[in-house]
Amino acid sequence: MRKGVMRPGHVQLRVLDMEEAVVHYRDRLGLIEVNRDSQNRAYFKGWTEIDSFSVVLREADEPGMDFMGFKVTTPDVLEERKQELIEYGCSVEVIPAGELDGCGERIRFDSPTGHYFELYAEKEQPGKWGISPKNPDAWPEELKGMRATRFDHCLLYGDDIDGTADLLQKVLGFQLSEQVVDQESGTRVAAFLTVSTKAHDIAFVRHPEKGKFHHASFWLDTWEDVLRAADLISMHDISLDIGPTRHGLTHGQTIYFFDPSGNRNEVFCGGDYTYPDHPVVTWDAEQIGKAIFYHDRVLNEAFLGVVT
Amino acid sequence: MRKGVMRPGHVQLRVLDMEEAVVHYRDRLGLIEVNRDSQNRAYFKGWTEIDSFSVVLREADEPGMDFMGFKVTTPDVLEERKQELIEYGCSVEVIPAGELDGCGERIRFDSPTGHYFELYAEKEQPGKWGISPKNPDAWPEELKGMRATRFDHCLLYGDDIDGTADLLQKVLGFQLSEQVVDQESGTRVAAFLTVSTKAHDIAFVRHPEKGKFHHASFWLDTWEDVLRAADLISMHDISLDIGPTRHGLTHGQTIYFFDPSGNRNEVFCGGDYTYPDHPVVTWDAEQIGKAIFYHDRVLNEAFLGVVT
Amino acid sequence: MRKGVMRPGHVQLRVLDMEEAVVHYRDRLGLIEVNRDSQNRAYFKGWTEIDSFSVVLREADEPGMDFMGFKVTTPDVLEERKQELIEYGCSVEVIPAGELDGCGERIRFDSPTGHYFELYAEKEQPGKWGISPKNPDAWPEELKGMRATRFDHCLLYGDDIDGTADLLQKVLGFQLSEQVVDQESGTRVAAFLTVSTKAHDIAFVRHPEKGKFHHASFWLDTWEDVLRAADLISMHDISLDIGPTRHGLTHGQTIYFFDPSGNRNEVFCGGDYTYPDHPVVTWDAEQIGKAIFYHDRVLNEAFLGVVT
Amino acid sequence: MRKGVMRPGHVQLRVLDMEEAVVHYRDRLGLIEVNRDSQNRAYFKGWTEIDSFSVVLREADEPGMDFMGFKVTTPDVLEERKQELIEYGCSVEVIPAGELDGCGERIRFDSPTGHYFELYAEKEQPGKWGISPKNPDAWPEELKGMRATRFDHCLLYGDDIDGTADLLQKVLGFQLSEQVVDQESGTRVAAFLTVSTKAHDIAFVRHPEKGKFHHASFWLDTWEDVLRAADLISMHDISLDIGPTRHGLTHGQTIYFFDPSGNRNEVFCGGDYTYPDHPVVTWDAEQIGKAIFYHDRVLNEAFLGVVT
Repeated sequence: MRKGVMRPGHVQLRVLDMEEAVVHYRDRLGLIEVNRDSQNRAYFKGWTEIDSFSVVLREADEPGMDFMGFKVTTPDVLEERKQELIEYGCSVEVIPAGELDGCGERIRFDSPTGHYFELYAEKEQPGKWGISPKNPDAWPEELKGMRATRFDHCLLYGDDIDGTADLLQKVLGFQLSEQVVDQESGTRVAAFLTVSTKAHDIAFVRHPEKGKFHHASFWLDTWEDVLRAADLISMHDISLDIGPTRHGLTHGQTIYFFDPSGNRNEVFCGGDYTYPDHPVVTWDAEQIGKAIFYHDRVLNEAFLGVVT
Repeated sequence: MRKGVMRPGHVQLRVLDMEEAVVHYRDRLGLIEVNRDSQNRAYFKGWTEIDSFSVVLREADEPGMDFMGFKVTTPDVLEERKQELIEYGCSVEVIPAGELDGCGERIRFDSPTGHYFELYAEKEQPGKWGISPKNPDAWPEELKGMRATRFDHCLLYGDDIDGTADLLQKVLGFQLSEQVVDQESGTRVAAFLTVSTKAHDIAFVRHPEKGKFHHASFWLDTWEDVLRAADLISMHDISLDIGPTRHGLTHGQTIYFFDPSGNRNEVFCGGDYTYPDHPVVTWDAEQIGKAIFYHDRVLNEAFLGVVT
Repeated sequence: MRKGVMRPGHVQLRVLDMEEAVVHYRDRLGLIEVNRDSQNRAYFKGWTEIDSFSVVLREADEPGMDFMGFKVTTPDVLEERKQELIEYGCSVEVIPAGELDGCGERIRFDSPTGHYFELYAEKEQPGKWGISPKNPDAWPEELKGMRATRFDHCLLYGDDIDGTADLLQKVLGFQLSEQVVDQESGTRVAAFLTVSTKAHDIAFVRHPEKGKFHHASFWLDTWEDVLRAADLISMHDISLDIGPTRHGLTHGQTIYFFDPSGNRNEVFCGGDYTYPDHPVVTWDAEQIGKAIFYHDRVLNEAFLGVVT
Repeated sequence: MRKGVMRPGHVQLRVLDMEEAVVHYRDRLGLIEVNRDSQNRAYFKGWTEIDSFSVVLREADEPGMDFMGFKVTTPDVLEERKQELIEYGCSVEVIPAGELDGCGERIRFDSPTGHYFELYAEKEQPGKWGISPKNPDAWPEELKGMRATRFDHCLLYGDDIDGTADLLQKVLGFQLSEQVVDQESGTRVAAFLTVSTKAHDIAFVRHPEKGKFHHASFWLDTWEDVLRAADLISMHDISLDIGPTRHGLTHGQTIYFFDPSGNRNEVFCGGDYTYPDHPVVTWDAEQIGKAIFYHDRVLNEAFLGVVT
């Protein structure tokens, strides 16, 4: 958090059918549906999140990610980062406060991998959902489905992942926590970056096409919750990608599946922690199977091929 | 237990290399190595088992199962079952006490699927391993690997599974707990049978060849132990079949893998209970994918094809 | 199950305020409310139970247990056990079919500890709640509160526990699985009995007064479910007795609490299994603290003193 | 981490008998014993910690804490914090590099509650114990006892907890995450502070005496690990304080026990996360029972009374 960037604060996803998508994110993932704005975008949050939303769905003809936003500590930090983004060479757009309901001014910028990111300093803060801010109970009883607790990170696919990693490290204070490197060519195949002590707040995999979305990930508390998620996937005939399993990278315990529009979701628990003095954890590209799916030790076809 | 047959008491497996096999069953599965007999067979048990052994390994040129044995309550019951087996038309062989170290007389018989089973009434009973018989502690601290607690069941492949099921039900008092049935032809594709309240003490899948072995299964306490097993499989580069996942049949939580000789093992936890008044649980053959692998909802290639 | 007695099938408890009690058993324990009969008794079951009910609440001026019932395999077995109970010297009363909605004829008998027990062979069998009998899913999504899966056993307090144990063993085929014995006097302080492979289907603790009820116990799947139960106890300000903890006897993982009328409930998971050839597990009375509460290693005041 | 202070890096505890203490911290807590220095101090670390040690035991006539150290990002930060500590009015002592084996220069300072803290920028970094730095496996198989993964925080007792909290917030960049406040008097009874997103990196409870130590806490991965810890406590006859249970404050799942010298230890898992924009979570002092022990909802005698 050395440049005032705190955490992934929101992601806007494109869905083909809003009503199907709402059922998925609300009743299956178990996010809290909090709003529908004048553009008919649906807003959600995990119940532990104190801000007013973290997931925004927009109906469109193609699935994928519009942008991912990071919350910074103060408006001053927002202004400083904006200047540095311009100096770094990014195209920077100022989105006025209120364009997303309850969110202050957003600084949107592009990146070498073709993804759009945003920074913002202010968002309405109604507090955690379903429990009192004072003498708070352990959890709210009314949660649905997988009971995802928070939006955690995105994994994005694009060509120049070294470029985007450099941008995030230099301007936004991200730290490279883990990576997959082809030992022969020296090419970095995957880069995991964090602004906290989490193993990743964002991740990238090298891919010929720009601007692709692999998955949005949500936090569960336990491996038993991952099983519950897997059961719900089967009970509601949701398209499973892979899991329950563990990742080698970060060692998180995970399951991947698809929303009705084909966007991949992950719910996961556990995993390693990282501090600024931690060396980068490196996996050899020839062990990428184990790096991604620790138990299977091979990639499934979908992992590299299916993105939105 | 209406005919005095209590439980699966042992299984004798053929392994290609004894030393590799011992490392696998002792250090990976975590069974307790208890004996090596004059024929160089290695004996193991799960730590919660009070009898002296439950798994016997014999070095041979081909993997597979020699026989599976069930313990009955008394020598009288053993004699009664022997007579009924003969009347039923089985080839019955009496194996003298001591042929397996510490085991009393065994009544061996063949079955319509070509598998050999045994009954016996007596086996040395040193008690649970590593804890005191009096004021017993919760578990012994010295367990290794997956810490499998007991031998639970076998799944066998053969042609006339209705015949073997009939034999086990009529003569040995087994109950059909679950089955997979082809609704069109009425063919029973899989049969799960129990002599206790466990969902299965033995199971069969229809298969053109007689006498095939699909897996020997061992009990773990929790889903977290299944994860631990999965991690050990990866850490020791053991050949994984599938998992961690859940079965639709029995709803147990499971992982399948292979011993160094190619015999499949399962470790699992949880799952349904059955009483004599419970109706048979039936899965449609067209849903066999979900019946076997509840999350993936498709069979992997190995499940039907790879047997020993 | 050597005398055809299968399992604890129901318990009738007295509650002081029916509406409060219904909220507790339905919304906190998470039993399924299935019926209210013409005497205003409320019927419940755990979702995995195939019979129509297992818990009956009756409004009365004092809390406690009216009777506990066991299901037998057939009407013939019921008749045989009735004759044996009479021969043993019990007062036997025949309760006509339908006195409890959906339950066949019940044979009620007294016992040396002053508790009333029943046997019955028939009860309506609607199947598990919330899942299909064919191709059954893993669990129903609509469960409430602690999601107790089944009625498991009762622990009863009374004077002549050796007498009641003898009755249950001789006439009903129970097996003594675990006990606490005062080594000096040879007095048995507690007796755990089973008709299955569960560590207990009923248990007794020696106590000067006859006919006392310590707790009715319900099965949970996991230690994480025990935590969830503990959280709900706090969130709904339910009177906690003790837990989460483990028992030394049976090694189950448990929490005790009180219904609004002062009847003690237990929800628990895990624990040992028992077969007919298993020796009795004995704890020394001087280690009774550890035998009951394995972690604390001392009894709390309530355990011995508070019964209904 | 806004002032470059990263994490609790070490704690030095006084023990009455070194050999007993080593057995406890190594074989029961499961820390890795890494060193014994020329002063006969024993060094330990949790297996996930990349630095060379985090717990130091010193044999003395009285138990308690000598000091707790925090690692900062760089030597420059160390120098800046030193100047600010002097300006704030602390007594600052420079401990030369090497006084603790493998640790660089330490800046020791006192605090209004009478506790001694240290900052340091450099410590030998052998990496995580038992797994490869490249393509790292999920965990090492050779762990003992409770398998504590890392030193997490200390809870300290003292009089002027507002003073120490002010010092840690102003000079070291700590954030007040949770507190217990007496609503009538406005007195803060407990203060939890963090320099990361963990709910606490250090905590204080108001107490008439200065410089007291309540417990050192270690991280476990799961609630099942807390059960395992509880079992080990019983199996090795370790003095239990309380647990397994959950805290209301932070909502972590926990167990407290004592080392052979009477120093309290905690192992715990789970719990809330905190970011700089999170409001302070406040518990009313009249609910302190639930705040500390969420399930029991009353303090046990030891919690407030037993400190070293």
